[in-house]
Order: sequence, then C-alpha cells, then structure tokens
Amino acid sequence: MADATVTVGLLRERVARFVKERDWGRFHNPKDIAIATSIEAAELLERFLWGDPSPPSQLSGEDREAVAEELADVLIYGLSLANALSLDVSDAILAKIAKNEAKYPADRVRGRAP
Amino acid sequence: MADATVTVGLLRERVARFVKERDWGRFHNPKDIAIATSIEAAELLERFLWGDPSPPSQLSGEDREAVAEELADVLIYGLSLANALSLDVSDAILAKIAKNEAKYPADRVRGRAP
Amino acid sequence: MADATVTVGLLRERVARFVKERDWGRFHNPKDIAIATSIEAAELLERFLWGDPSPPSQLSGEDREAVAEELADVLIYGLSLANALSLDVSDAILAKIAKNEAKYPADRVRGRAP
Amino acid sequence: MADATVTVGLLRERVARFVKERDWGRFHNPKDIAIATSIEAAELLERFLWGDPSPPSQLSGEDREAVAEELADVLIYGLSLANALSLDVSDAILAKIAKNEAKYPADRVRGRAP
Repeated sequence: MADATVTVGLLRERVARFVKERDWGRFHNPKDIAIATSIEAAELLERFLWGDPSPPSQLSGEDREAVAEELADVLIYGLSLANALSLDVSDAILAKIAKNEAKYPADRVRGRAP
Repeated sequence: MADATVTVGLLRERVARFVKERDWGRFHNPKDIAIATSIEAAELLERFLWGDPSPPSQLSGEDREAVAEELADVLIYGLSLANALSLDVSDAILAKIAKNEAKYPADRVRGRAP
Repeated sequence: MADATVTVGLLRERVARFVKERDWGRFHNPKDIAIATSIEAAELLERFLWGDPSPPSQLSGEDREAVAEELADVLIYGLSLANALSLDVSDAILAKIAKNEAKYPADRVRGRAP
Repeated sequence: MADATVTVGLLRERVARFVKERDWGRFHNPKDIAIATSIEAAELLERFLWGDPSPPSQLSGEDREAVAEELADVLIYGLSLANALSLDVSDAILAKIAKNEAKYPADRVRGRAP
C-alpha cells in the first residue's frame, strides 16, 4: 500500500502542481472548490444508489475501480481546498478525531448507531 | 505543517481505531459511509453559502477553524470508506491526477475554466 | 390533501412573497439558491443515514414530521430557483417525465433497477 | 405558465404513474429516493460551478433548458418521496414558510443575509 509511505504533503503538492501548471488558481476559489467537493461526493454516492448496503467483498473489480476513482475526486478537491486556504489537513483530522473521542466515549456508545 | 511528515496510512489507522473501539463497523457499510461523506461535504459547503467567492485571506480565524473542521469530517469519512473497501488512497489520487493531466494538457487548457 | 387543489403557482407566489418582504432577492441569485437546494437535500438525506431502507409504515410520527419539513426546504428552494429564473416548473416536470417514458419504455425495464 | 393551473396533486399522480408502470416501487424506498434527490441537486448545482453568481438574464437559452431539466429531476424525486411516504407537499411547504416567517420577522431581517 502506497498509503503506508506517502505523506499528505506529497499528495497536496501533486494537486497544487496540477492546478498551477494550468493556471487554474483563479477559478479555484474556496467557494467553488467546496461546491466541486460536494458534487464529487454526490458522484461517489451515485455508485451506491438503488443497491442494498453491501459488504466490501461484494464489490466487483469494475465497481471497486469506479468507487476508487470517485473517492479520489472527492479527496483531490479536499486537498485543493486545504491548499487554497493553507489549512493543515493532518492536524485538522487528528484534532477532529480527538474531539469525537471525547464526545463519544467508547464505553458509552459501543455498538450503538453513531 | 504536520502534513509534511504524516502519512495517509497513519491517518487511516487513527480513523480505523476510532471506529473499531466503538464497534461501529457494523454501521460503517460502504453505502452509509458514502452518504455520510456527501452530507459532510454539504456542511462544508454551507460555510460558503450566500457569500461572495472569497480569497483565502478574507477568511477570519473563526471561519478558518470551522472550515478546517468541516473539511476534516469529509476526509475522515473518505478515509473510512477506503478502510471499509481496502482501497489505497494514495494510489487512487496519483492515478487520477495522471489521468487528468492526460485529459487536460496544460498547454491547451491553461487559464481557461476547468 | 391540500395537494389536490393547490397549484404550483400558488406555492411559488408564497415563496416569492417571503423573499420579497425580506428584500432577500439580492442574495437569492441562482448560484446560491442551487447551493442551498443541495444543502437542504443533504439535510433531508441525513434523516435516513445509518438506517435500513425502511418501508413508509416504519416511519414514526416524529420522523415523518421531520422528513416533511426537510422535504419542504428542498422544494421551497427549488421553487425559489424557478422564480429567480422564470422557469415553469410544471412544464419542466411534465416534459422530463415524457422524456423518461421514451428513454425507459415500461415493457423493457419493468421490475429492473432504474 | 402551466404553473398557474397545474395542481401539485396532478404532478404527483404523473410521477406515481411513471413509477407504477415500471414496477419500480420496490426500488423507490424512501432512503434511496432521498439519495437520488441529493444526487440530482448536485447535478443541478454543477450547472453553476466555476461561474460567477449570474443574474437570470445572463443564462443563455441552452443553459436555461439544462437548468430547467436538472431542477425537474430534483422536484420529481421530491414528489416521489412524498408519494412513498404519503406526505402532503403543499401543507408541508405552507407550514414551513409560516414557520420561517415567525423565525425571520421581515422588519428585523430585511436586506440582511439570510
């Protein structure tokens, strides 16, 4: 898994370079990037429309690849928003998980719907 | 920036641990995680509703923090979906950027709306 | 059911009056109304998150009321967009259904996933 | 404008007939209809991505038609959800507007962002 070694910063740099080489920074204002993130999340969701909630093993190879690509689109725009606003993604994620751990103590919520 | 050193895998492990400690895997089927990702993307977008497209420097400290937290929510569910389906996020993102580079050659699209 | 006698035009007028009385037309540009519609659709969807697909009869009174209110929010913004752009909602809906009838002939698609 | 004479009930009947003739009621559970509504709202929103907030008169004929069709998709699924749950759309909309009128008194909020 590349995830074991690739840093968030490396992915952000790749996204930033893609935008910069196309001079798309002028379009990539935070509001439109947030819109794009939401649209890509809907396209990801569309992959699961009308279907039963499926365990992972039931996703065929083709569906897996399509879901991976739609997920990538969501994350690319998320990283692009972080770039546009100079937000640290890792800090934000780790802080939010810590906040959720305090809000939902494991002993109290275990096994109940989130 | 923590992003310079934190790997995607480390963030995925933190998300996975949070879910596992609460025994929430039974709820975290891919379909519902995709729904949750989409809902969080809408909450992120809500931060920009009714406002002008704003350059980064115009986001006040409080708004920055709120946007960072909503962005974290989107990314946490994205990583959770990757965990549920054993998808490699870095591979997916790098492959999608490469695909987009071929689809939108810099020389041809520079400075035009994406 | 009020739906049996209330025209679409009457609902549009009520929405238009609400916006006009608050002088909110300046904020209600088509782009932001479309964003608001999408956000409200996510709030509607949130009512069904983590749950099984439920037959209507399983929605309790309280949940029914909450779903009705979220659905109203989606439709109010949809009507507001029609007002802002002077689109005829009934014509658009009837035209789209006719288009879908031609695209999905009943004899060919009956009982198969849409 | 057809909206001046067409009742909400008539539109609901047309949507119900389309679903019934295809025996799609089994797929049209409330959860999946809510997902579909959200996806269609994102497709509507996509029409405004990367662009300036535009006054109505700046929408060209082709764009107007595309927006009208995407809006129709959102509303059709909204009416389908009302059908699936036997909700009265007109009652819900009029009640929500009344609630908003009480929450946002015109004298107090006039001209300020919603």
